[in-house]
Amino acid sequence: MRDVAVIGVGMIPFGRRDEDSLMDMLAMASLKALDDAGLGDKEKAVDAVYVGNMGAGILQHQTALASSLVDRLSLLPAAAETVENGPASGGSAVKNGILAVASGYYDYVLVVGGEKMREVTGWRATDFVATMTHPLAEYIYGVTLPGLAGMFTRLYMEKYGVTPEMLVEVAIKNQSMGALNPYAHVEMAISREGIYESWHSIVNNPPVADPLRLYDACPVSDGAAAIVLCPLELAKKHQKTPILIAGFGQATDTQTLQERDDPTDLKAVTLAAQKAFEMAKMKPSDIHVAELHDAFTILEIAESEHVGFFKKGEGGKAVLQGKTRLGGQIPINVSGGLKARGHPVGATGVAQIVEIVFQLRHELPKERQVRNAQNGLTVNFGGFGNNVLVFILRRVEQ
Amino acid sequence: MRDVAVIGVGMIPFGRRDEDSLMDMLAMASLKALDDAGLGDKEKAVDAVYVGNMGAGILQHQTALASSLVDRLSLLPAAAETVENGPASGGSAVKNGILAVASGYYDYVLVVGGEKMREVTGWRATDFVATMTHPLAEYIYGVTLPGLAGMFTRLYMEKYGVTPEMLVEVAIKNQSMGALNPYAHVEMAISREGIYESWHSIVNNPPVADPLRLYDACPVSDGAAAIVLCPLELAKKHQKTPILIAGFGQATDTQTLQERDDPTDLKAVTLAAQKAFEMAKMKPSDIHVAELHDAFTILEIAESEHVGFFKKGEGGKAVLQGKTRLGGQIPINVSGGLKARGHPVGATGVAQIVEIVFQLRHELPKERQVRNAQNGLTVNFGGFGNNVLVFILRRVEQ
Repeated sequence: MRDVAVIGVGMIPFGRRDEDSLMDMLAMASLKALDDAGLGDKEKAVDAVYVGNMGAGILQHQTALASSLVDRLSLLPAAAETVENGPASGGSAVKNGILAVASGYYDYVLVVGGEKMREVTGWRATDFVATMTHPLAEYIYGVTLPGLAGMFTRLYMEKYGVTPEMLVEVAIKNQSMGALNPYAHVEMAISREGIYESWHSIVNNPPVADPLRLYDACPVSDGAAAIVLCPLELAKKHQKTPILIAGFGQATDTQTLQERDDPTDLKAVTLAAQKAFEMAKMKPSDIHVAELHDAFTILEIAESEHVGFFKKGEGGKAVLQGKTRLGGQIPINVSGGLKARGHPVGATGVAQIVEIVFQLRHELPKERQVRNAQNGLTVNFGGFGNNVLVFILRRVEQ
Repeated sequence: MRDVAVIGVGMIPFGRRDEDSLMDMLAMASLKALDDAGLGDKEKAVDAVYVGNMGAGILQHQTALASSLVDRLSLLPAAAETVENGPASGGSAVKNGILAVASGYYDYVLVVGGEKMREVTGWRATDFVATMTHPLAEYIYGVTLPGLAGMFTRLYMEKYGVTPEMLVEVAIKNQSMGALNPYAHVEMAISREGIYESWHSIVNNPPVADPLRLYDACPVSDGAAAIVLCPLELAKKHQKTPILIAGFGQATDTQTLQERDDPTDLKAVTLAAQKAFEMAKMKPSDIHVAELHDAFTILEIAESEHVGFFKKGEGGKAVLQGKTRLGGQIPINVSGGLKARGHPVGATGVAQIVEIVFQLRHELPKERQVRNAQNGLTVNFGGFGNNVLVFILRRVEQ
């Protein structure tokens, strides 16, 4: 396997982007990544394009996105395809881009993830996301992702003593960081006092799926993010500090939560992380910054334990102790995470990599930069933890 | 790059399969391929699963198919994702499966393509397929794939002298071969006399998009097909003759036909084939059997020229001369092709590989077997030729 590096990243602000089509967003993020890699004006800049997208068929009544994008970007005759894996579509697109370069078949690969979700609102948005549940064992009974997250939270509270205060602290941390991130959907920081005042307000913070409330959930967003990959040996001639894909892992679990021996045990997260650490020859304490998949606040806590940053039951306490804040033991979701950056599902796995690349290049403003970060990790969580990807990135000093 | 071989294939009869869900079909084809590879009863039989599917979001209101399938097949914790590329989704899934094994990251990979299209009928089926057209330059004006094929046929007739008789001959050949294929959707052979009698009958052979009529078009089908890939070095310990992926290529072209300098020039087919031949170190005359993407009869003729079996303008004549029949110079679509085997879009690219593997293993009944075939080729045609994959397979004597 050839070593693969990220040489370009680009994203557009997530949020409500009524004025842009999905294809516009994919193109904008792609062009930024190509420019960042110094390939913006090159003919045949890339050999292949991977698009991570979950729902253009349902949301935009459009298929074959990648074929359309490659033409729009004047990258013909580059290969192109769309990769779909629910909310881990971005991560799956990145993985296949990596394998394509690692194999030696392609040298330059563009991976872009995007989703335009705000075309549907209310129950339709929830229903769209629920298309990833089991059609016969979940969907027809009205099981939704917030519903599963609510039940998971209740079990996690009972087994590990996670408290609502710990969840609130995740929301406060991520929204305060998101307020500093120009790409974030939610630009509003929330104060501890403010959120506790409104915590029990059915108006300001209504229950979504008990015990989860509005402030525990990520928003429904539009957005896109892109990266350019190439073999490490070619990366060195590009303008930016190369960021090596040091390791990655993917694992699957039962589709339904009720089939798992212990529904609080996110086996796919553990396994995917183990594979990634093994490949990277690292351990959790080697990581300086992490982007976890906090579609709900509980998931940041659970994932921080399952990847090995904290023991089971310690993740919530770590949040209260500030260990996951910027400047803490392991800064998590300095971008604001899904909670504040937003969660255009197909974009998320790619946006996580973009953030880690920003961090490892040391190019963020001081108030958002993890000082001297060398290694970063991402968790992209598909289904309800039934298809998970973990990536470990490493700064390569030139 | 590691050499990659096909060690197992499986498919289910294409057609109208009201009794089976899409997931049922994917699972059935997968199990047959795993059994064929001798992995049917193995724990952790494969490291990764790729699903080729175009439209489950639209047709089944379902996403994250691959995560569901890997659980259904008890292949946890294997990696899993869906690859989408319109009617070339199957080919794109195969390509990514190959790259995954070639990279050295995975050893055993299952690739399965499937589509359940008969849930929609009439204009809804045509509309579903049209979701791959350009939303602003084609779709909103009512452009459909049969419409594009009709215009393409007219241009091809004018430029290269293709006649309706040549198209009829493709239909006759492919339906007569399909009648011998237990996996084919259309089981009815048509006689030359019969089809000419009904050729101008608005009832028996109504125009679909002038000059194309019903008998020029493939049916709308349900179906699934699967293959198992592994490194060639491991393939030799499996039960069946390994079939090497000797070469493959993919190329894209403008999304809309009207932007091409010469709309009869299928550049992506030419380029994809060139890449495949170069990698395989072969030339068109080295191929003993081919599966071309005859969604419309004209495409078999056009592709047979663009991959290099015949000069431009000679493909139609070659059909009349019997050169593409079983026993001819280069037997094309001995399976019946899309025209008779059927065209469940996500399945097609995989089904073409399955057929070539059957042929190169020499395991078909005499009336369908290309005698002593050593090398085979497939063309999987996405969009209207804007994203094309070509695979070249070679029998490996043990």
